[in-house]
Amino acid sequence: MFSLIFDLEEERLKAEISKRKAKRVLIQLPEGLKPVGPRLAEIVEEAGALPIVSADPCYGACDIAISEAKNLKADLIIHYGHTEAVKAKIPTVYVEARAKVDVSKILEKALENLSPWSRIGIATTVQHIHMLDVARKILTKAGKTVIIGDAGHVKYPGQVIGCDYSNAEAIADDVEAFLFIGGGKFHAIGLALATMKPIIAVDPFENRIHPIADDVKRILKQRFMCISEAKEAESFGVLVGLKIGQIDMKAAMRIREYLKEDGKKVTMLAIREITPESLMEFPSIDAYINTACPRVAIDDASRFHKPILTTNEALVMLGKISWETLLNKGWFKHFI
Amino acid sequence: MFSLIFDLEEERLKAEISKRKAKRVLIQLPEGLKPVGPRLAEIVEEAGALPIVSADPCYGACDIAISEAKNLKADLIIHYGHTEAVKAKIPTVYVEARAKVDVSKILEKALENLSPWSRIGIATTVQHIHMLDVARKILTKAGKTVIIGDAGHVKYPGQVIGCDYSNAEAIADDVEAFLFIGGGKFHAIGLALATMKPIIAVDPFENRIHPIADDVKRILKQRFMCISEAKEAESFGVLVGLKIGQIDMKAAMRIREYLKEDGKKVTMLAIREITPESLMEFPSIDAYINTACPRVAIDDASRFHKPILTTNEALVMLGKISWETLLNKGWFKHFI
Repeated sequence: MFSLIFDLEEERLKAEISKRKAKRVLIQLPEGLKPVGPRLAEIVEEAGALPIVSADPCYGACDIAISEAKNLKADLIIHYGHTEAVKAKIPTVYVEARAKVDVSKILEKALENLSPWSRIGIATTVQHIHMLDVARKILTKAGKTVIIGDAGHVKYPGQVIGCDYSNAEAIADDVEAFLFIGGGKFHAIGLALATMKPIIAVDPFENRIHPIADDVKRILKQRFMCISEAKEAESFGVLVGLKIGQIDMKAAMRIREYLKEDGKKVTMLAIREITPESLMEFPSIDAYINTACPRVAIDDASRFHKPILTTNEALVMLGKISWETLLNKGWFKHFI
Repeated sequence: MFSLIFDLEEERLKAEISKRKAKRVLIQLPEGLKPVGPRLAEIVEEAGALPIVSADPCYGACDIAISEAKNLKADLIIHYGHTEAVKAKIPTVYVEARAKVDVSKILEKALENLSPWSRIGIATTVQHIHMLDVARKILTKAGKTVIIGDAGHVKYPGQVIGCDYSNAEAIADDVEAFLFIGGGKFHAIGLALATMKPIIAVDPFENRIHPIADDVKRILKQRFMCISEAKEAESFGVLVGLKIGQIDMKAAMRIREYLKEDGKKVTMLAIREITPESLMEFPSIDAYINTACPRVAIDDASRFHKPILTTNEALVMLGKISWETLLNKGWFKHFI
């Protein structure tokens, strides 16, 4: 089923293993693709290497399993579904898992939703990046001016990832709205927070357009509440990510300094998976500042019993920037 | 509160940091002790180092945070509550968190429970290891013959850990029953499975004696059921632990070979925290063999949707050893 929807590049997988004479291969898949793990392992084995599938959660290329591969003595990592974000010391092949779904039909429908605007930015995940041209043609044919951003942070122009919307931010001032192409609401919500523009989110898997304006409103309200709540806190935990692309000691040290200047108690906490259970082990801590994945605070706030702020939200809490600045600069720019 | 119950050795902590001129210290605590993390961080900071508390789950010294410390550029690990199990390449101080609770009172009461037997083995966790002599005296005064085992695997004679009861196994044939001293049922159940002897489990925190015979019976029944269920499975996942003291590729490769000889499909899965959620990502896999922590299968079976076997249980399933051999050899000996 999955191989009908996503291009798993099985032939390339075999070729990479032969070419590199890999003996032990660690296969890493994002949550949605994990079910194909056993099938891919078979292919790796046929190609002559020992396959090991990582069963740990993986939400991005920030989580590339370098130390895991080292400890397992793997000589090659095959990482599915994301593009390179961290230089790995172990040879790594990225398979982008492009979606084999057509976007034309739902895009034709989206033209109605786009009718109020003439200047449109397009953004998408790597799974649909090959559809950007199709989308551009459909929109220009309908008389729209299409802009696709390229800030150079991620692999492809127009590509967005969960925590990086720089390609969209780069053109936000030049467009009236964004067309987002991709499954679910996760990236579309991120895009809205990053740009504060209207988003038409077309989902080519479900062939539908997701309304996300209410989600964004709800999240903004929640973020404002979390910041207000955290203002009352006396004891803070500063979360330092342990996933290789999420460690940001510099940001953590800076936030720690600011909190101390403000008379707060601060404990630095190193953490891999940020779960409500893990944080509940520290009852004396009133609120958290998360220097790791910004999406944990934004998307999972209701799961946690204490407020968790992103670094930029912490600056608002501390009065170093205003709520409006946060809105304008977006949630995903590292400006601390 | 915790510092009243456990000796956190705060003075030694300061001295170790000064002596080693540590600049950045990673503090690792088992779940029950995590609430003292912020307090210990303060002490580390007073001693002149930057403290970082690990917020990841930690159930034993098998899980010593070496690669985490490396990635955080910590120059010292302070590990609480366990004794050394893995040689770490980063300087590591173990603080045993000895319990400051008296055992005499509950031991006097336990004499009644021990009345059917005259030859008694004593086992305990490192938290109460200093109470072994007290216990020995009380028992010998009551006319018992006391034996404390020393197989040389763990730090202290008589000490048991979640997955290693070798000190008790070494004397199991020489005793009629075991006195276990420690909190909760976890180690007492392990001791029963390892030795198949009657266990009198005295809990000096709650000042009570835990009945565990029914728990052991329930677990044995459940293990037998899991093995039977796994016999019907066609597709297996062999779990390879990613915690540094849990990686056992040799065992995993051997089990993989056996399963293949038996005509089963096998996928090797590398995993840090074995959770029901992580395993549910692989719907095509019918059953798991866990070469990492044996306690996951034994204690948490009901949380998982598919059977998980220990390596030794897998040998029973494959007909390589009998259920009786498993019972006799115990759950924790590595005999595959």
